[in-house]
Amino acid sequence: MSEVPSVSPSFDDLRFTPDGLIAAIIQQANPSESGLPAGRVLMFAWMNREALARTLATRKMHFWSRSRKQLWLKGETSGHTQEVVTWYRDCDGDALLFVVRQVGGACHTGYESCFFQGLTFAAAPEVVAEAKRFDPAQAYGTPSA
Amino acid sequence: MSEVPSVSPSFDDLRFTPDGLIAAIIQQANPSESGLPAGRVLMFAWMNREALARTLATRKMHFWSRSRKQLWLKGETSGHTQEVVTWYRDCDGDALLFVVRQVGGACHTGYESCFFQGLTFAAAPEVVAEAKRFDPAQAYGTPSA
Repeated sequence: MSEVPSVSPSFDDLRFTPDGLIAAIIQQANPSESGLPAGRVLMFAWMNREALARTLATRKMHFWSRSRKQLWLKGETSGHTQEVVTWYRDCDGDALLFVVRQVGGACHTGYESCFFQGLTFAAAPEVVAEAKRFDPAQAYGTPSA
Repeated sequence: MSEVPSVSPSFDDLRFTPDGLIAAIIQQANPSESGLPAGRVLMFAWMNREALARTLATRKMHFWSRSRKQLWLKGETSGHTQEVVTWYRDCDGDALLFVVRQVGGACHTGYESCFFQGLTFAAAPEVVAEAKRFDPAQAYGTPSA
């Protein structure tokens, strides 16, 4: 993982949680290969100040894993990195939107997007029509979820 | 606000926080009038089980306001409702994506999206090039934020 820049932005306009986190939405910049509209939402995750500073310095998405309690470069194991094209904060400064170029697929299950599971209005799962983009066993060295 | 349906879905596949909340990303279904790509991300908010049940029953987005501690029909005051077209859960069931038809604009400031503020890689605000979609004073009866 790269060095943290010596001078970090202040992030004064952002509102982190008491745990020091901020919500991050990751959206596809390039047209999706799934046939779904361009601008597909790929994933939702959390960042802390260091993850945000590293993301801006490297233009590659970094997150904070709440379960593993560690900083995480997206694609570090799989090679499926996310290169930031543009980013936005929302009107009250407690959520961020990153528009990225996704290498491979975003989801650890092999799908392009973590939001691959459509639901009916009765909250029942729809059939997933799209194919996986990669084999998770090959990408992560673990059995497919 | 409409009645809660007598038989609610169980939401067994969803993981709510200890406070009973789940993250919700709202994305534009119809082509944006801003010139930005279709599928623009409009807002990020939180839902509880009741907000989700009402959303599915009425097909209009309902949220839980953490600051006001109350259920909230999006557009109740402004008329700027969000009609759900499709919805998805993410791979670990702790975030939802709703693709909606937005009436008017999503942001209380008058912009189409709450994510109107682009930022540089030094985290400085970019000039906002797009125009507001509506006058917040007129929509909410309060001065513009």
